[in-house]
Amino acid sequence: MPRDSRYDILFEPVKIGPVTAKNRFFQVPHCNGMGHHNPEGHAAMRGMKAEGGWAVIATEEVEIHPSGDVTPYIEGRLWDDKDIPGHALMCEAVHRHGALAAIELTHNGTSVSNLSSREPAIGPSHQMTNYWPWQARAMDKQDILDYRRWHRDAALRSKKAGFDIVYVYAAHDLSLALHFLQKRRNRRTDEYGGAFENRIRLFRELIEDAKDAIGDTCAVAVRFGVDEKMGADGLLHDGESRDVIAMLAELPDLWDVNVSPWRHDSAVSRFSEEGHQDPFITFVKQLTTKPVVGVGRYTSPDRMVQLIKRGVLDFIGAARPSIADPFLPKKIEEGRPDDIRECIGCNICVSSDMTMSAIRCTQNPTMGEEWRKGWHPEIVPAKQSTDRVLIVGAGPAGLEAARALGQRGYEVHLAEAGTELGGRVSRESKLPGLAAWGRVRDYRLTQLDKLANVEIYRDSMLTAAQIREFGFERVVLATGARWCSDGVGRSHWNPIPGFGGPQVFSPDDIMDGRLPAQGPVVVFDDDHYYMGSVIAERLAMAGLGVTLVTTGDVVASWTSNTLELIPINLQLRRLGIAVVTAHDVVGFDGNAVTLASNYGEPGRVVPARAVVAVTSRLPEEALYQALLAEPEALRDAGVKTVTRIGDCLAPGLIAQAVYGGHRYARELDAPPQGEVSFKRVVWAPANP
Amino acid sequence: MPRDSRYDILFEPVKIGPVTAKNRFFQVPHCNGMGHHNPEGHAAMRGMKAEGGWAVIATEEVEIHPSGDVTPYIEGRLWDDKDIPGHALMCEAVHRHGALAAIELTHNGTSVSNLSSREPAIGPSHQMTNYWPWQARAMDKQDILDYRRWHRDAALRSKKAGFDIVYVYAAHDLSLALHFLQKRRNRRTDEYGGAFENRIRLFRELIEDAKDAIGDTCAVAVRFGVDEKMGADGLLHDGESRDVIAMLAELPDLWDVNVSPWRHDSAVSRFSEEGHQDPFITFVKQLTTKPVVGVGRYTSPDRMVQLIKRGVLDFIGAARPSIADPFLPKKIEEGRPDDIRECIGCNICVSSDMTMSAIRCTQNPTMGEEWRKGWHPEIVPAKQSTDRVLIVGAGPAGLEAARALGQRGYEVHLAEAGTELGGRVSRESKLPGLAAWGRVRDYRLTQLDKLANVEIYRDSMLTAAQIREFGFERVVLATGARWCSDGVGRSHWNPIPGFGGPQVFSPDDIMDGRLPAQGPVVVFDDDHYYMGSVIAERLAMAGLGVTLVTTGDVVASWTSNTLELIPINLQLRRLGIAVVTAHDVVGFDGNAVTLASNYGEPGRVVPARAVVAVTSRLPEEALYQALLAEPEALRDAGVKTVTRIGDCLAPGLIAQAVYGGHRYARELDAPPQGEVSFKRVVWAPANP
Repeated sequence: MPRDSRYDILFEPVKIGPVTAKNRFFQVPHCNGMGHHNPEGHAAMRGMKAEGGWAVIATEEVEIHPSGDVTPYIEGRLWDDKDIPGHALMCEAVHRHGALAAIELTHNGTSVSNLSSREPAIGPSHQMTNYWPWQARAMDKQDILDYRRWHRDAALRSKKAGFDIVYVYAAHDLSLALHFLQKRRNRRTDEYGGAFENRIRLFRELIEDAKDAIGDTCAVAVRFGVDEKMGADGLLHDGESRDVIAMLAELPDLWDVNVSPWRHDSAVSRFSEEGHQDPFITFVKQLTTKPVVGVGRYTSPDRMVQLIKRGVLDFIGAARPSIADPFLPKKIEEGRPDDIRECIGCNICVSSDMTMSAIRCTQNPTMGEEWRKGWHPEIVPAKQSTDRVLIVGAGPAGLEAARALGQRGYEVHLAEAGTELGGRVSRESKLPGLAAWGRVRDYRLTQLDKLANVEIYRDSMLTAAQIREFGFERVVLATGARWCSDGVGRSHWNPIPGFGGPQVFSPDDIMDGRLPAQGPVVVFDDDHYYMGSVIAERLAMAGLGVTLVTTGDVVASWTSNTLELIPINLQLRRLGIAVVTAHDVVGFDGNAVTLASNYGEPGRVVPARAVVAVTSRLPEEALYQALLAEPEALRDAGVKTVTRIGDCLAPGLIAQAVYGGHRYARELDAPPQGEVSFKRVVWAPANP
Repeated sequence: MPRDSRYDILFEPVKIGPVTAKNRFFQVPHCNGMGHHNPEGHAAMRGMKAEGGWAVIATEEVEIHPSGDVTPYIEGRLWDDKDIPGHALMCEAVHRHGALAAIELTHNGTSVSNLSSREPAIGPSHQMTNYWPWQARAMDKQDILDYRRWHRDAALRSKKAGFDIVYVYAAHDLSLALHFLQKRRNRRTDEYGGAFENRIRLFRELIEDAKDAIGDTCAVAVRFGVDEKMGADGLLHDGESRDVIAMLAELPDLWDVNVSPWRHDSAVSRFSEEGHQDPFITFVKQLTTKPVVGVGRYTSPDRMVQLIKRGVLDFIGAARPSIADPFLPKKIEEGRPDDIRECIGCNICVSSDMTMSAIRCTQNPTMGEEWRKGWHPEIVPAKQSTDRVLIVGAGPAGLEAARALGQRGYEVHLAEAGTELGGRVSRESKLPGLAAWGRVRDYRLTQLDKLANVEIYRDSMLTAAQIREFGFERVVLATGARWCSDGVGRSHWNPIPGFGGPQVFSPDDIMDGRLPAQGPVVVFDDDHYYMGSVIAERLAMAGLGVTLVTTGDVVASWTSNTLELIPINLQLRRLGIAVVTAHDVVGFDGNAVTLASNYGEPGRVVPARAVVAVTSRLPEEALYQALLAEPEALRDAGVKTVTRIGDCLAPGLIAQAVYGGHRYARELDAPPQGEVSFKRVVWAPANP
């Protein structure tokens, strides 16, 4: 299908200094947990996006020197020439599809650990490092010259590796150039401190140095965080940031603008809409003739066109939407925007960087598997047998298995016990802030609609006997899990005394609309991800008085990995929810819960007429056990395998359920792979 | 010097199944942050200990299968044959010095993340994983068979790699064998659950499998945590653990016993004495004739002899003491136990594992640098010039620089302004619980005493002019840092309103004995390491009412990396110290401090007649600036270089100061090393 002419503007080429982007789709720098540790995995992932139609593909931040070492985080490295081959891999993968390769050079200044290099951290003035209990030292003039030399050398190495665009980075509070610009960090009294002209000097010099070193053939881009969202201590988009853009307006070949810190840039959908950065960045194009790129979790082509036409942006920047769908541009180009796998804004991708593991995505189970498993997001191998597959349960695992098996050409029947499809995704997407998570279902239903070989039954609760009656060779159980209400979880191996009566609820009760008749309610969060906070929010919105008690040191402690810890905690207080951290619930008598401190404080009692336990789940495996109980009957029915996927196998993340469904579909009839079913980085002795 | 015959018993050979250890010094398994990511660095570190006289050198825990993947932590891997060469490197390095190489095989069961492998976690029953918001699934019979096969295959691979001893691991709550044994985790109703005989079945099978597979030439050791220190929910040394040892008594070739979880095993010196595990492990030898190894931060040879003679242990196990001094056995053997660099029990070594970086040690600056920089803990290159070195300041950096320069043969003068040597180490070691930190000073003073070419001056505050008068070619400033009392730090760029008067103190005031005349006192901890808690403790012991306010979500949040977060927090409550977390101090009026919540709670006021700010430090660099201000005078005085080291350069950890001093000494007159002064793991294209 030809593309809608409305979208033609998105496919205009745009000049960036000495190079030209073939269209307006620009994958801005983003972390991925592979970086210098796995350049092959990294290159394959970036190359896949080039294949998917993005005109520009950037690296994550790339350290230019051992004194800018962000261990344990795994980003890019360009410390010396030894690092060039790894980057060249990516450039080749990107160029193969006619895209431009960009590299984001940075020295993270006061935000480094230097845990690998063991160098002292450096900054504009003496100060604490951002995350570590040691300090950065003030740079002297020689240090500044050294830093400029490192940056220039890194630019030259970038060119040698094959990059087309070299970034000077001043965003996210993660760059020395920015640290010099910040009044709060820069207390110098020399020509690099004090007045604005002095504080911006180093930033300008870096850009000039880069232009001078590689500007003949490479574009020099700037990534600048225009608002730090911290009031007068930080840069403001309607304050000094205007002066920055105005003063440097025509110096770089491209402006990539966003907001800081990272949690505001990659804001979760729970608290921020598509386009949430627009109000902060619209001013930029008024001050420069150079192309401008910005982000805002844009997945709607109409919105993109609007942004170009309104003169807000020249390029549609994307990190997360390009992770959820590396083929987003191609799908618009080919006139099938409905096929876009839209980012749900959950930031599981970010959690990979935070946990030093290869990037994964809730929507796109192939993310991070391009090299490891050779998975392509759009192409699957054709079926290898005429086996028919019965899938029980249309949650994220079941839907994805059905979709990918259908794409492979298998005959698939998908039976869902309820009327609604989507399972936990549909249920959770009705909780406050989680509407976008419904996209996990929506994408798959759109695709399933097009597959004649997949049949879907609703309201079809199957028994073991009925499953056998299908007579399908393959049975897949994707029946999900249910939340326990007895309090068993991380902190309790046995039910909590008093849990079990009608005043005790689980998240499933709340999602089903079975709310406590009266408050006050205690939500007990022993899970530490999002669910406890969302349930508390839901109850508060229903007018119930809520106290959230958690065994964590902070509410939703694991959400520090998804950049939503602070907004979640602020939200709870905004809603008047009381919070008790670092306490366990040890009893409930119908009128109050008894708490025990993690750290030896005296016991406490909190009035409660109802309790919601957010502690752990149990797989819905009754059907599985029933099928296994009669192996002869299964055999007689022609069933070769019965396989559990998703939460029915092991309750976990939605991302894990989607992955499990996809993996089942990929591996059906595939040859056995041995214990290690993916490529990995293994040390090997050098050849003599 | 020949060794003291009292210590002969420590050098008796001991049989371990089919192999024989040459003496009783046994480096038990310990993590190191290098593992599978850097087998060369790992092998060099282990080899150094073999050179230092340890009879047995073990790996860290080694994952046997992708479903036991503990990403982001970097431990050993033996997933398939590809991992053999990396382990063979270590075996060769260890064998070169006549020591035995041991490998600790494990599948971490419910404590894995599987962030790299993306496999579901497994356990005896459905349950939460230990650290992650996803669950482990219950293993079925086939899973148990698979697990046994993986373990057996790993044992065979271990033998192939060259290991002499293969561990079956059941300690620290980090092993599937142990998870099956634990009543709380194992809710099975089959022959692997329920009665003790059933819960121990898998553990016994693993040992039998290993004996069968490799027992002909390799010893099979068991590491078993005899007490989980959690009451009835856990294993107790006077409970079921006795039955475990009794039942399996003669099955393994060696028992390595300790307590769980890790924070109790590697307990910090602040809360635990040398030998703190003795009461828990003495029973073991009564139940088995096999050799027994145990740990307890033993550094005293007399204590070690006692443990053997009393029949508590056959081997002196060590992790941390072998890190602080890889040559501990050699030094006893050579009759110079005074040269032992005794572990201070600070757990900076552990923090490396927690931060996925190569292991470092406060006492031993060469730890983790054996391969990276080719550093040997006992050998330094001879001096390369006749330059004389004046060091100003006898803190950890100055002492170590003087010691290592002296060892190299340089003429060194060390001038200390005060009467006492040791700087911050001496000052901090007088704070509650930190006495062992004085060993950083003691080791160096003992060594300096033996160096005729190092002269030490006390009570010698030098001016710039006096420094020039020395006329030494090299001037090293190790003048340390002082704590700010104005509140500037992570959370404040400007002094906190009201901070500055006589009622506001810094940690230096407290260490100098200048305590508030009256309480209540608020300690404001914006640093998040140990100091805030130690100061609070000191004040409470002086009878002052104390509230500790911290911007962290928990007191001393960074000490989660040194395994002391829980004991610190318990200690504060035991002492009656009130705690307010996740709050900033925004003002002080002489009678109260005003607090602001991190998460939008209403402001609070806490009564306070005094405040101690634990926020940040400033280098003592006046002398440095004075010297730089007159470059001609310096030149005329014959001074070639003026160099800052330690906190005077960048306030940080004691470990960083010692390292800085050592590095200066190593690199004096060394050829320039380029920007990257150490070997590292870099991806390179495979040779064609």
